[in-house]
Amino acid sequence: MTLPESLSSRAVTDPDVKATYGIDESVGALAPDRYEVVRARDLGDVVDVLAHAQATGTPVVPQGARSGLAGGSVALDGGIVLSLEGLTTITELDAVEGIAVVQPGVINADLKAAAAAEGLFYPPDPASSAFCSIGGNVATNAGGLCCVKYGVTADYVRGLEVVLAGGEVIRTGHRTAKGVAGLDLTGLFVGSEGTLGVVTEVVTKLVPAPDPALTALATFDSLSAASDAIVALRRERHRPSLLELLDEPTLAAVQAIADYGFPTGCAAVLIVQADRPGHTAEDVQRYAALLEEAGATEVAVADDAQESEALLAGRRALHHALVAKGTHFIEDVCVPVRQLTDLITAGHEISARTGVEITMSGHGGDGNLHPSFFYDAGDDDSRHRAEEAFGELVKVALGMGGTITGEHGVGSLKARWLPDEVGAASIERQRAVKALFDPRGILNPGRVYWS
Amino acid sequence: MTLPESLSSRAVTDPDVKATYGIDESVGALAPDRYEVVRARDLGDVVDVLAHAQATGTPVVPQGARSGLAGGSVALDGGIVLSLEGLTTITELDAVEGIAVVQPGVINADLKAAAAAEGLFYPPDPASSAFCSIGGNVATNAGGLCCVKYGVTADYVRGLEVVLAGGEVIRTGHRTAKGVAGLDLTGLFVGSEGTLGVVTEVVTKLVPAPDPALTALATFDSLSAASDAIVALRRERHRPSLLELLDEPTLAAVQAIADYGFPTGCAAVLIVQADRPGHTAEDVQRYAALLEEAGATEVAVADDAQESEALLAGRRALHHALVAKGTHFIEDVCVPVRQLTDLITAGHEISARTGVEITMSGHGGDGNLHPSFFYDAGDDDSRHRAEEAFGELVKVALGMGGTITGEHGVGSLKARWLPDEVGAASIERQRAVKALFDPRGILNPGRVYWS
Repeated sequence: MTLPESLSSRAVTDPDVKATYGIDESVGALAPDRYEVVRARDLGDVVDVLAHAQATGTPVVPQGARSGLAGGSVALDGGIVLSLEGLTTITELDAVEGIAVVQPGVINADLKAAAAAEGLFYPPDPASSAFCSIGGNVATNAGGLCCVKYGVTADYVRGLEVVLAGGEVIRTGHRTAKGVAGLDLTGLFVGSEGTLGVVTEVVTKLVPAPDPALTALATFDSLSAASDAIVALRRERHRPSLLELLDEPTLAAVQAIADYGFPTGCAAVLIVQADRPGHTAEDVQRYAALLEEAGATEVAVADDAQESEALLAGRRALHHALVAKGTHFIEDVCVPVRQLTDLITAGHEISARTGVEITMSGHGGDGNLHPSFFYDAGDDDSRHRAEEAFGELVKVALGMGGTITGEHGVGSLKARWLPDEVGAASIERQRAVKALFDPRGILNPGRVYWS
Repeated sequence: MTLPESLSSRAVTDPDVKATYGIDESVGALAPDRYEVVRARDLGDVVDVLAHAQATGTPVVPQGARSGLAGGSVALDGGIVLSLEGLTTITELDAVEGIAVVQPGVINADLKAAAAAEGLFYPPDPASSAFCSIGGNVATNAGGLCCVKYGVTADYVRGLEVVLAGGEVIRTGHRTAKGVAGLDLTGLFVGSEGTLGVVTEVVTKLVPAPDPALTALATFDSLSAASDAIVALRRERHRPSLLELLDEPTLAAVQAIADYGFPTGCAAVLIVQADRPGHTAEDVQRYAALLEEAGATEVAVADDAQESEALLAGRRALHHALVAKGTHFIEDVCVPVRQLTDLITAGHEISARTGVEITMSGHGGDGNLHPSFFYDAGDDDSRHRAEEAFGELVKVALGMGGTITGEHGVGSLKARWLPDEVGAASIERQRAVKALFDPRGILNPGRVYWS
């Protein structure tokens, strides 16, 4: 495969640099042998790539910051990686209309900072906020730690500019506060993981800024007590802005890299934050009382931002701790909150039975955990057993009325389970919608609902 | 056209009763000569109707409470009106998961009341809240008075059960707090105005209840001062939960039916509410100060619920006042908030130039007005001039980057302008999506994007 003259000036040629564009953050991602990388500099470049790809039947993988965890932006053999990371302009930020208009390569944290400078807030906050891009967030309908109060990316997207397969450019949605003219194509593109078109501009909604959050941290000697606390907190009129859960194996992994003050042997830790303007101290104290009532063995409450950050430090170290613990698959199941205890218990049972080490932690307040399944990278049998255990827990989550993915996306890693969740009738329609927008199947083929 | 035996027991036969199912609340709606009405009693009835309709190529108009204002649920000649009004069960209401599962015929106000009994809140509140149905709200992605703070129906729909043309039943979305598995078919159905399928169950999101609102009412002697006040209020960190605008001709129409205390000759009235728990009095006083700073000539502030309701009485009487004033078309344009003054001024200019009486009022805080165009029902020329004036204002709104419909839907009355707003490329895709879900074109044919 060779790129046409018109695109070659945007292509990455250095093999080492090119290799970095071949994969994302998903475990076990391997770049194929043959692929090209084009770094778009403007809308025209995206149009050129999609026109060329359509004409030649070349697969295109739209790619943002390569922080994806589901394999949705790994290069495809014989295909073009279309990187949007260079499109980093915040075109507009309007406090009265409550919108920002941004290019897809804008980093999540940069949009947050720009909004904050105007007293506004862009809530979606994947743990990768410091380096993930808005385009990738839109592609996966990303969530994060704030969702328990603020919802997900889709809740903050009003409109899009999208380049379709073949190079046609359409605009969807609206800039106004409301708008119901015609079918909601915006919602269709959000979360479509690059399978329907390439997003080149996003109109995001911004909301008034909350107060800096105050944190409480509680330890529990039983999962059911931790779960009771979550249920009590979800009934709160003034909702926590963060409600994270770490189980015993997770805490051991975190303590293994440094002492974050977690006692050994406790069954679970909950971390809760309050950010309601003018009421953070009052709310976090009330949360602390609820945590104690539910049976917490110890509760620490931050008085200021510094203590707050200190209590969150162990949670922030989680990703590094799990990487240090070893190679692992990351799940992204979300279940009804009442089922959390049963989900975690099921994970521990699967671990005990199969010998696969499993940590269960994540956004407890949403019922959205990221169970991690550890294996020996050099041992196919070990990897296979981890995969089997992974699949078992997915089935448990689906049996609870849950989903295979709360916020990471289906990508390539979870595609095999999608029909079990949504059913054949839905898959058939999803594929038909795909065929309608991408008749030659050039956009991220083989992913999500098309494996 | 005759209904098959299996459906005839659900059919309405009394001609007078049948006639009431022929039309909705849209102005000038006329039922066609020949149509059947089937009142569904359960999912099976809906399946039967859509199977029969598909087999015979019979048009089906899904219908809720017939409160639509865009002609989207008026009977079609030779077709079946499929009424969902009998499906009124709230199947589930779960305060921990923060969801309600409801049938489409549930009245909006009944869901609000059921949620309130659990300390929860279902925000979407069309002015027709007391008699419109959730199914209709989903079909049009309805808004209301709360949107300035709480958003629209789509923001509160997590999942759907939908019967497709032919009778196949699919489920979309999720019950969990998050879920990104596959394409967002839920969003596609919300706002599709009965053109893609018939919704038979809705999983709605509920949020914690606010405080009972306190109201402020301000009069202005210039539109630009009222607009300045709206801009100032939109910059508020603690947003108004309601922000309505009435222009001079609207105020005259309201005063004509009873004395609601509006002074004659003022250019505009703004009505503002605060519902922040524990802070309603403080917030509404701050809003009052902002209204004065912006140049209000008079500001009244309610101290309690009774005074609050009294200040809102003129707004509540609006629909009756406009009906009493005469036959009129209702527009539903939404523009960027900064453009409100220009939009209203344009309406007044069109009125002065054409002689068509036009009132400009609505959800000022969203930039979403419902301009009304009056005409003599017995005079075709008068009606034609009102239609022309209506079309002129639509063009002004589109020129401002606005939309033809903020919350009522496109239906049949606004279909002619949809291509001007969304463009040919989008219309083409919308029609293709329609063809995919409804290959024989039996679902609300001729409406929205398919005229």
